Amino acid sequence: MDSTDLIGYIAMGLVMVGFLPQAWQVWKTKSVEDVSLSTYSILICGAIAWTLYGVLKNDLPIIITNVVLFFVQSSIVICKLKYGKKHPNQD
Amino acid sequence: MDSTDLIGYIAMGLVMVGFLPQAWQVWKTKSVEDVSLSTYSILICGAIAWTLYGVLKNDLPIIITNVVLFFVQSSIVICKLKYGKKHPNQD
Repeated sequence: MDSTDLIGYIAMGLVMVGFLPQAWQVWKTKSVEDVSLSTYSILICGAIAWTLYGVLKNDLPIIITNVVLFFVQSSIVICKLKYGKKHPNQD
Repeated sequence: MDSTDLIGYIAMGLVMVGFLPQAWQVWKTKSVEDVSLSTYSILICGAIAWTLYGVLKNDLPIIITNVVLFFVQSSIVICKLKYGKKHPNQD
């Protein structure tokens, strides 16, 4: 593994771990009012597109990161739909 | 531009646009209780690492996406620090 791969895997680890506190917080508090449904819906589409890009470029850090992100971000969307109440200021 | 580049730019666009509703929502409502500070702090570090990875791989979609993400995610962290109150269930 060269230094570029190493940085790729560090970057992958940070982004994969990054969404876990948000997923844990919405699961634990069941409070999702300030979490944007639009953001996580778009990010799921983004994760699918990035996964496809990673496959086409044969880039493993991109593939692994975005497959994991797809599931973590989906869990946040599920919590948002389950616990959220529509609020005039929310999108 | 081949189809791989096209998918890369679509993926880039989705992730860049994805965080805007969340940034807009916290800026507009000034309500950040359910937004995880840990998530956005880690994601900023992730954006820096991905940018470096993109530079080393000479991969423009990765570089552009993560430079934009750095600024959008930083704006969310600034709002969180400015408007947030510490809550026992928050991390």
